[in-house]
Amino acid sequence: MHDHAIPQRHQVPPRQGRAFRLKAGQVMTVINTHGTQVGDFWAFAADDLSEHLSMAHLHTDLSRLNPRPGDRLVSNHRRPLLELVEDTSPGVHDTVIAACDAVRYAQLGVTGHHDSCAENLHLALGAIGLAVAGTPAPFNLWMNTPVRADGTIDWLPTVSRAGDVLRFRALVDCVAVLSACPQDITPINGRDVSPTELHVEVSAP
Amino acid sequence: MHDHAIPQRHQVPPRQGRAFRLKAGQVMTVINTHGTQVGDFWAFAADDLSEHLSMAHLHTDLSRLNPRPGDRLVSNHRRPLLELVEDTSPGVHDTVIAACDAVRYAQLGVTGHHDSCAENLHLALGAIGLAVAGTPAPFNLWMNTPVRADGTIDWLPTVSRAGDVLRFRALVDCVAVLSACPQDITPINGRDVSPTELHVEVSAP
Repeated sequence: MHDHAIPQRHQVPPRQGRAFRLKAGQVMTVINTHGTQVGDFWAFAADDLSEHLSMAHLHTDLSRLNPRPGDRLVSNHRRPLLELVEDTSPGVHDTVIAACDAVRYAQLGVTGHHDSCAENLHLALGAIGLAVAGTPAPFNLWMNTPVRADGTIDWLPTVSRAGDVLRFRALVDCVAVLSACPQDITPINGRDVSPTELHVEVSAP
Repeated sequence: MHDHAIPQRHQVPPRQGRAFRLKAGQVMTVINTHGTQVGDFWAFAADDLSEHLSMAHLHTDLSRLNPRPGDRLVSNHRRPLLELVEDTSPGVHDTVIAACDAVRYAQLGVTGHHDSCAENLHLALGAIGLAVAGTPAPFNLWMNTPVRADGTIDWLPTVSRAGDVLRFRALVDCVAVLSACPQDITPINGRDVSPTELHVEVSAP
């Protein structure tokens, strides 16, 4: 492997978000550094940010809630933006829960500001000079909120391990955003409710 | 009951959509005229159409996929827009599947135009002089696409009966849209795949 092919490694600090520009063919690896951290994940078509990964369309396309390696992740225009190429974790993720936001934390009893994945999405895009109007439903990596047979949803700690990775190949030029979820009230980021960092590697173009 | 309190009854013709302005307190009754018809349903805040019922936020709020009578249906701002006050059907509805659209029908082999719930949403709003940018994930009334314990989703005919009703009370002024789903390829509108009309009654203000 030549020097120029070494993937670039980035930290997504605890409670923060980062945006990554991906060219078609580039591979983005999301690393659950400590194993207990949920990442809210979005992707937008680079040429039209109103086209984005859509969980409702993904459900229709896969006839399944969660993608598996080999599945293509479609947009609200039903166009595949990314392929999930590898998942070293047990495959427990969430595609039905909204990103946390200021109102959610207020409902959970927080007074004053609390970091949130919705805010992180817009801050991360803003940091690279982009903006979107709304907050699409995210792909919640490693979030363990299983849907029971009766339709009820539990809120549980992750079942992933330190170093687990999810690897996505960009099928079109896109902008991916990852938020290291700042949820520190419900136990989705581990029983000690301590949000941690994630890491991202992006392959050379 | 005085004349002015008699609910207004409207037909939503087969394969079409209609929009209804609701004042806070008004009750909208959706009637499954023949029992086999799915209705894609949306609601928008009258004072800001970018605020709309959001299935991802509803899941979070209820910790459940499907609402039941007494549940409040929240927006993407986590504000309750409607209350589900009555459901005479077995309560089998869908909140994870996207509205059908032109691309979906093309993928199912249709050539040329095919009516779709996404188009119906925008046509119905346009007919009363309104427009929204995107197509939010709908509340699919009576749609029987159960999520199995392994996360897979089936596509099955409705289990509702002729005359079953869903009754919603507006909690704020809003605009509700109902599309009588034109899906005639998968059997979600009954085994004879013949989309039919729905009826709507709106109580006097």
